[in-house]
Amino acid sequence: MSCAGMILRLSQASLGKLKEEKGNESICLFATVDGKKLVLATLYTTKLPQQHLGMVFDRDFELSHDWENGSVYFYGYRINNPLREEYPFCFYVSFFQ
Amino acid sequence: MSCAGMILRLSQASLGKLKEEKGNESICLFATVDGKKLVLATLYTTKLPQQHLGMVFDRDFELSHDWENGSVYFYGYRINNPLREEYPFCFYVSFFQ
Amino acid sequence: MSCAGMILRLSQASLGKLKEEKGNESICLFATVDGKKLVLATLYTTKLPQQHLGMVFDRDFELSHDWENGSVYFYGYRINNPLREEYPFCFYVSFFQ
Amino acid sequence: MSCAGMILRLSQASLGKLKEEKGNESICLFATVDGKKLVLATLYTTKLPQQHLGMVFDRDFELSHDWENGSVYFYGYRINNPLREEYPFCFYVSFFQ
Amino acid sequence: MSCAGMILRLSQASLGKLKEEKGNESICLFATVDGKKLVLATLYTTKLPQQHLGMVFDRDFELSHDWENGSVYFYGYRINNPLREEYPFCFYVSFFQ
Repeated sequence: MSCAGMILRLSQASLGKLKEEKGNESICLFATVDGKKLVLATLYTTKLPQQHLGMVFDRDFELSHDWENGSVYFYGYRINNPLREEYPFCFYVSFFQ
Repeated sequence: MSCAGMILRLSQASLGKLKEEKGNESICLFATVDGKKLVLATLYTTKLPQQHLGMVFDRDFELSHDWENGSVYFYGYRINNPLREEYPFCFYVSFFQ
Repeated sequence: MSCAGMILRLSQASLGKLKEEKGNESICLFATVDGKKLVLATLYTTKLPQQHLGMVFDRDFELSHDWENGSVYFYGYRINNPLREEYPFCFYVSFFQ
Repeated sequence: MSCAGMILRLSQASLGKLKEEKGNESICLFATVDGKKLVLATLYTTKLPQQHLGMVFDRDFELSHDWENGSVYFYGYRINNPLREEYPFCFYVSFFQ
Repeated sequence: MSCAGMILRLSQASLGKLKEEKGNESICLFATVDGKKLVLATLYTTKLPQQHLGMVFDRDFELSHDWENGSVYFYGYRINNPLREEYPFCFYVSFFQ
């Protein structure tokens, strides 16, 4: 996804319709930003088929997922960044073992 | 739904009242935009009867669902698009097998 | 609820405290607008005691529910409608069998 | 909580860390406004340990809860009320049996 | 996290991908502000892998968690504080036994 000098709000992710029930599959959703692959959310085919999201990005990123049996729909929108220099967005904290 | 030159925020979908319990039915909600049918959310009659949504549309779209036993209520509102040319809204990512 | 020329955001509904446990009761919440009774949400006494809502109203409406064993608390707030003529709010889609 | 002539948004409540597991305890959260005790939300130690809230207050209120085995953390923030006279906030509807 | 004279909105926390299933682990997320360690949320590896958050901070804070088997991703963004003196943010209420 290209931010094109704007801010992009990622507001929802929804699993596509199941063709056949295969038990409760777990699907990880990722955003790759500046070469780092971040986990956005984990969805479940039968327990948690969508998630309201609150991410904001000010630079290009790539969305991906690890579901082999269906599609994932991401929803969001771009807004102008009124004071671009002042807004360092998208931080994350990660503690590895 | 007509956006009429404005932005439309889709903020909630709620299943109607059940007339009779038929187990945990699964209902898919769709939006058709530019000829593409997107999955908005999956609801369940007994486990997830409504969902807060975060979609934003800047063009006309059609809402539908696949529930044969009841109604679905969608809630949203239109706002003026202050800088129309600058706002390409509604993107989605879909990975087919 | 009177909108009084303003916009009213309905942001949350919460079940009151249970006096006695009666299993998992299901409670429907309604808004009647322009003579139409819309389902806002379905709550459950033991599984889903409150729901974050995203409804916006620009005209008077009446809130109600079908719980016989307790109270429901609705939360919201009014904001000025800066450009009133331009904002047709509150749409819904309903498919009856 | 004092609003101090401003608007206060109550945006989240989270249960503190459990010292010992005591089954699925139910905790009621309250706000007392103008002498009325409103139910904000019901949390559960093992099923629903936090809740995103959408309440807005324009007058002082008192937060409380009925959990005897731990702490509850409330999060929110104050914003200036740009047009104070125009904003009657915080309504609720309650139907007693 | 440094607020750098701005307001920081913490909008989501998501558990990283599980390397191996170890049952339903419970993970507490904390923010330490002014020497006080606040509970932001409790996540569960199999039941609640992410949470939409609504916290706002106007001073530096430190994020941490107690998960020994994985990473936690926090998402948020900074915005300018237009009227800094007027905004005392981040309150909490805690009742110890």
